[in-house]
Amino acid sequence: MAEFVRQVPEGDNRERMMCPDCGYIAYENPKVVVGSVVVADGRVLLCRRAIEPRMGFWTLPAGYLELGETVEEGAAREALEEAQAQIGLDGLLAVFSIARIGQVQMIYRAHFVGAPVFSAGPESLEVRLFGWDEIPWAEIAFPSVHWSLNAWHRLGSAALGVPAGNPGSDPRGTERMDRLSEKAGI
Amino acid sequence: MAEFVRQVPEGDNRERMMCPDCGYIAYENPKVVVGSVVVADGRVLLCRRAIEPRMGFWTLPAGYLELGETVEEGAAREALEEAQAQIGLDGLLAVFSIARIGQVQMIYRAHFVGAPVFSAGPESLEVRLFGWDEIPWAEIAFPSVHWSLNAWHRLGSAALGVPAGNPGSDPRGTERMDRLSEKAGI
Repeated sequence: MAEFVRQVPEGDNRERMMCPDCGYIAYENPKVVVGSVVVADGRVLLCRRAIEPRMGFWTLPAGYLELGETVEEGAAREALEEAQAQIGLDGLLAVFSIARIGQVQMIYRAHFVGAPVFSAGPESLEVRLFGWDEIPWAEIAFPSVHWSLNAWHRLGSAALGVPAGNPGSDPRGTERMDRLSEKAGI
Repeated sequence: MAEFVRQVPEGDNRERMMCPDCGYIAYENPKVVVGSVVVADGRVLLCRRAIEPRMGFWTLPAGYLELGETVEEGAAREALEEAQAQIGLDGLLAVFSIARIGQVQMIYRAHFVGAPVFSAGPESLEVRLFGWDEIPWAEIAFPSVHWSLNAWHRLGSAALGVPAGNPGSDPRGTERMDRLSEKAGI
C-alpha cells in the first residue's frame, strides 16, 4: 500500500490525505456522537466504561453515529448496546462541539420504554441509576458528561427548548477532563 | 495499494472497509453539514450552485464541517466561502438526518454582521436575497432547503426554541428532490 501524502486537491482549499498512486482522497471530517440522558423517577442512567479511554469512569450511553442511521436511531441504539435499555427520546437536550478531537455531540433527554430495565452491555462494566446527589462527580469520564448532566438538572422535567451548548468557559471543546477536575477541585 | 475488503473487525459488530495487508480500518461515518438561513429585512439569502450535484439550483450557504471547527464556526465559514457574507448566528433553527446519504444537517438562523454585503464565491453562480413570495421553489436544490426555509417562515423573527426536525412525511431523510417536486406539483 502506498503511503498517503498530505496535499491540497485541485479545487480544494485545504490539505487532505491522498494516495500518490491512484489519487484517492481520504476526507477526514468530524464525527457525530449521539447519546442520551435517560431519566427514571428523577434519577439518571450512567454506564461505567469497560473500554479505554477513561476505562472505569462513568459516562452516558453514547457513541458514534453509524451510516444509514438518523440521529434519533443512533442514540436509541447506543442505549441498547451499552446499557441494554429500551428508550424513547423526549427531544434534543444539548449540542456540543469538541473541536479538539473532531466531534459534534448530540445529547437527547430520554425515558425508558416501560419499566426501567437495564444491564451492562459489552462496553460497560456496570450500569446504574443515580439521583443528582448520588452522581460520582469525581469519576465522570468526560467534560461533556458533566455538561449534559448539568443541562438536564437545570431543565428538570420542564419542556425542552433551545438545546444547551458548550459552556461559556469552553466554547470550542478544548478542555481536558484532568484540567476540569482540577478547576472543580475534585 | 491493496484493495480494501469489507469485514467485521475484532470486537466490532459491523462490517468496515479494511486493508487485508496492514489491517488498517477505514471507518466511514455520517458527516455533519452546517449551514444557515441568513435573513435581512425579512428576506433570505440563497446561492445558485456552480457545482454538481444540482448545479444551477438554489441552496442555502452550507457545507461539510471540517476537522478543528465548531459547528458555529463551520456555518459562518460556509457563508463566507459561498456567499462572501459575514454573518452572526442567532441559534440553531433545525437539525435534519439525511440517512440515505449519511448526513446530519445543522441549520442556523443568522443575520449579516453590518450591512447585507454578499457576492458569489467560487462554488456559487449567483447569490441573492429573496422575500418569501419570491423564492424560486421550482429551482430549489435539495429537500432540506425546503424544510429549512419552511422552519424559518413558521418561526419568523420569534425567539428560537426547539429546533425543527425532519418533516413527519420523511423522518429518515430518504426523499429525493425529484419526488418532492412531483408531490408539490412543481
